[in-house]
Amino acid sequence: MIEAARVTDVLDGRWPQLRRELRERLAENKAADTARLDMDAYRALVTDQLRELAGARHARLGFGRAHGGEGDIGGSVVSFQVLGYGDLSLMVKAGVQWGLFGGAIQMLGTERHHARYLPDVMSLELPGCFAMTESGHGSDVQHLRTTARYDNGEFVVNTPDDDARKDYIGNAARDGRTAVVFAQLILDDRSYGVHAFVVPIRHADGRPMPGVRIGDCGPKAGLNGVDNGRLWFDNVRVPKENLLNRYGDVTDDGQYTSSIESDSRRFFTMLGTLVRGRISVAGAAGSATQRALTIAVHRAQSRRQFRRPDSDTEIQLLDYLAHQRKLLPALAKSYALHFAQDELVQMLHEVQGTPEPDPIAQRQLESRAAGIKAVATWHATRTIQTAREACGGAGYLVANVLPVLKADTDVFTTFEGDNTVLLQLVAKGLLTDYRDNFADLSPLATARLVAEQLMGSVLERIAARQVIARFDDDDLRSRAWQRSLFEDREQHVLSGLAGRLRAAASSGTDPFDVFNDVQDHVLLAGRTHIERLVFDAFDAAVGQCADEEVKALLGQVLDLYALATIEEDRAWFLEHGRITPARAKKVIAEVNALCKQLRPHAVTLVDAFAIPRQYLA
Amino acid sequence: MIEAARVTDVLDGRWPQLRRELRERLAENKAADTARLDMDAYRALVTDQLRELAGARHARLGFGRAHGGEGDIGGSVVSFQVLGYGDLSLMVKAGVQWGLFGGAIQMLGTERHHARYLPDVMSLELPGCFAMTESGHGSDVQHLRTTARYDNGEFVVNTPDDDARKDYIGNAARDGRTAVVFAQLILDDRSYGVHAFVVPIRHADGRPMPGVRIGDCGPKAGLNGVDNGRLWFDNVRVPKENLLNRYGDVTDDGQYTSSIESDSRRFFTMLGTLVRGRISVAGAAGSATQRALTIAVHRAQSRRQFRRPDSDTEIQLLDYLAHQRKLLPALAKSYALHFAQDELVQMLHEVQGTPEPDPIAQRQLESRAAGIKAVATWHATRTIQTAREACGGAGYLVANVLPVLKADTDVFTTFEGDNTVLLQLVAKGLLTDYRDNFADLSPLATARLVAEQLMGSVLERIAARQVIARFDDDDLRSRAWQRSLFEDREQHVLSGLAGRLRAAASSGTDPFDVFNDVQDHVLLAGRTHIERLVFDAFDAAVGQCADEEVKALLGQVLDLYALATIEEDRAWFLEHGRITPARAKKVIAEVNALCKQLRPHAVTLVDAFAIPRQYLA
Repeated sequence: MIEAARVTDVLDGRWPQLRRELRERLAENKAADTARLDMDAYRALVTDQLRELAGARHARLGFGRAHGGEGDIGGSVVSFQVLGYGDLSLMVKAGVQWGLFGGAIQMLGTERHHARYLPDVMSLELPGCFAMTESGHGSDVQHLRTTARYDNGEFVVNTPDDDARKDYIGNAARDGRTAVVFAQLILDDRSYGVHAFVVPIRHADGRPMPGVRIGDCGPKAGLNGVDNGRLWFDNVRVPKENLLNRYGDVTDDGQYTSSIESDSRRFFTMLGTLVRGRISVAGAAGSATQRALTIAVHRAQSRRQFRRPDSDTEIQLLDYLAHQRKLLPALAKSYALHFAQDELVQMLHEVQGTPEPDPIAQRQLESRAAGIKAVATWHATRTIQTAREACGGAGYLVANVLPVLKADTDVFTTFEGDNTVLLQLVAKGLLTDYRDNFADLSPLATARLVAEQLMGSVLERIAARQVIARFDDDDLRSRAWQRSLFEDREQHVLSGLAGRLRAAASSGTDPFDVFNDVQDHVLLAGRTHIERLVFDAFDAAVGQCADEEVKALLGQVLDLYALATIEEDRAWFLEHGRITPARAKKVIAEVNALCKQLRPHAVTLVDAFAIPRQYLA
Repeated sequence: MIEAARVTDVLDGRWPQLRRELRERLAENKAADTARLDMDAYRALVTDQLRELAGARHARLGFGRAHGGEGDIGGSVVSFQVLGYGDLSLMVKAGVQWGLFGGAIQMLGTERHHARYLPDVMSLELPGCFAMTESGHGSDVQHLRTTARYDNGEFVVNTPDDDARKDYIGNAARDGRTAVVFAQLILDDRSYGVHAFVVPIRHADGRPMPGVRIGDCGPKAGLNGVDNGRLWFDNVRVPKENLLNRYGDVTDDGQYTSSIESDSRRFFTMLGTLVRGRISVAGAAGSATQRALTIAVHRAQSRRQFRRPDSDTEIQLLDYLAHQRKLLPALAKSYALHFAQDELVQMLHEVQGTPEPDPIAQRQLESRAAGIKAVATWHATRTIQTAREACGGAGYLVANVLPVLKADTDVFTTFEGDNTVLLQLVAKGLLTDYRDNFADLSPLATARLVAEQLMGSVLERIAARQVIARFDDDDLRSRAWQRSLFEDREQHVLSGLAGRLRAAASSGTDPFDVFNDVQDHVLLAGRTHIERLVFDAFDAAVGQCADEEVKALLGQVLDLYALATIEEDRAWFLEHGRITPARAKKVIAEVNALCKQLRPHAVTLVDAFAIPRQYLA
């Protein structure tokens, strides 16, 4: 049997030392028994823990060296990922403070903001909020309705009505002293679109600032150590300098200036710089999923139920095919997503490490972040649910952690971008080949753009037929065959979608219906693209693995990821003549065979996540 | 637009007056704000509510008239279903008291137990527990390890070790005064299998009885108003009369007697009488799902996001195809399951209303209860999750109910029988044609029994080909075509499974592997059987509907249930040549078309559930 530590070495990827250090630090913590704390006590505890964390590297990793940070953007995401093995309220609260609040100041502000705020952000001297979402607008951020009207050297911030109050804002209900508020910048009665403003919301003693009203979102499904709240602004005046002015500013004589002319393009550029939040959520979702799988696999190994026929020994749960089916394909997908996440973090590290990043690379990063976030958080929701069920009654007890994981991660699928909206963003990027500002294109404009480009579908169909001819008699574990299925599906779905949009655009269909009628197809295009990227990332990681035994084991895990994914979508492959019915049945049988083959390694594969023990009980 | 009340009349089925009365009673309640209560306060509240309920019809419905009950077994399940619209902790606590505890005394005891206990059970004078599950044995109840040794006119109850402690027992941690304890009846060092004993566990003042140790399961994912606990017995002596002796007894001179000779057959007969618990869980799962859908559909109707192209109006969420796809097929399935549940309750009412029920009918009832429970609770878990996501951040706030529904229902998939185990029970019943005691058959014995019977698969394949030939050019909404797909799939899956088992049984495969290698096929056989039953039940209900407009609407809902189910499993239909790839694609398009068509009726369809408003927050 391979030692788990050898697999851990492969999983540790590009930031091995940092990961080890952070894991060791986490292992020293005592896992607090938060289940019996009421909301107030839990919030207080998390705030204390956050203060402790402020003294550690986590708080500094992502900020520039000039202000006392370490300038390691990728490392800062890795750090969130490791925090994700522990209490997720703490992870989210840290994410709000150093990721969202600090990140917005860093990415949207300029030197004067960095110098003034970042040291206090890192030290938690200045606890802050990221006040973007409103009750009425979450996904459609461009149409937020909070206003910041320029008036004589100041901005006046207002909440026009309850529908425009800031909602679900982390750190707002209890601790936040300052908020980065996203609002329509209005100058001479014209809006220049959404900009970010630094707005003090509380005195040091906790009283709200004049004109600021603060509400409490109250108990949530999970993450009750985070004080989510609501904010209303009534003629709150802040100096002009509080505008985070990297992408737009108001001159001393009251003129709006920006390096980006289009309001909408500017807005999406600003939004794009905040991509790290999504990547961190994807990473934390991965950690929570790994934790759930570790718990469920260990229980399936120790728990026995029903006797072996003609014998008194009882059968380990993990020996049942149905139980393997529940846990092992999910485990394989967690491996795949782990490597895809690592690749994504490296992309982020490179793009944001460049002073003037290539716009195409920036958009590809955004698209990939959106897609991986959606796929990873849905995987978390589904897998943690399955892990809970696989542990039966024990899995329902808070003492066994799974209910907490389920409740805490549940919001991941909809915060930092609703998954359904995010997958559509991915598809739009693909359809427009990341041209210009695809996030802002209307459905009809997208369809028209699509009409201009794109390969003939006939050629593509011929290529697909060759794929089948070449591989149909081969081994299902042929990596080349697997890859061809992932690639071919992605291309075919996309070109089919382009064709449908092109047809609709020229047929006079109602502009809303143009996109809406194909929305399921759009989502499929996003998903199949991401699944191919995830496959490639896992494939590349296996290819680079120097430890031959580990490489062989991970190769089987990759086979299981690939074939279980193909199995799940085999209706599509059958409908499009990519596999024969006989071969589809063989795929099912092969997934069963791989489950049986990997079953003895299941404990090794979860132990390789190296999650500190106190978070598994 | 059809009024919701007209649809309600159809949904109310066989117990319309009772349903109306119970709904009206529920509507008078104030929905308590339980989110801020700690566990102890929540438990106390639920106990108070239970006491109130003890004065109402709910407590009496299921018990015999001779002891003050109403003798309406079906009505008692309907009553749980209506309670399921409210606080689920109260529903479960009521289920423990009057369903499980009282039900066990009623079904397994004899007149002396009925006369002595039932009045106090109904009035809650005697709060009780149903102590079956042990830490080590939940699904495999036959091998429970608690013992009740006969000794000189008494039984001596013992917990041999911690693994055999009674676990997750509702009403045990705080309120229960007496438990029905399931234990191996041992007489002269021989076990006669598991029997049920009435064992006092607490004095009226709350102290445990001598020899009884009581523990607390602590906080759970949900249902924290229910005091689940653990019980250990150390030489606890109870009089011989405390054995619930309907199926087995010990004579005054210390001889074991029973009308059923085989220990195992006797055990499964006893277990079979307790089927009402599962049926009640299925019903409550249905109610919770309906509640979640009502909340999510109303929000999707009122919530708008993103502007209509070239316009300032924003689009209602429910106008998006992706949103319709999330909610409407789930809603259609909820309708289907509602009618299937109604049919099941009637079956229960008839079988248990007969003094000596036909054994085959009894086994069919058990099988159907197991299958509907599995399908309905998985549907609940999935749909409530989807509803939560469909409501975004708002859906994560406890104030909006969905997190509570998710957490409270989560255990439904594994309590009162683990769903995976239950579906296997369904398949075994089918394989053995409900002969004798299929629940007790070993895998190998099942396989051998199967080898003796069953139709040639060639004939069956020809029949299937005719099915396709006859319908392939027809309308996808042809009910006959839909039915033929459900029936044909069920038969083919079952006969294929029988074939594989027969082959394995004669090939010298390891007896464990015989069943385990086909476990996914076994589960499929169970599921496809239940899906056909559910289709039939919905079809019958539509057929009987006297209101023509409602009938037409429900016909479309049935179309959506049928086609969405076929769509979900279309890989199977493709693999087995039941539909062509072109037709499979048409099924997808038709599901989209049905979503669009039903969209204007979505609010009517959820309002028809008539859930009291205060439970929709």
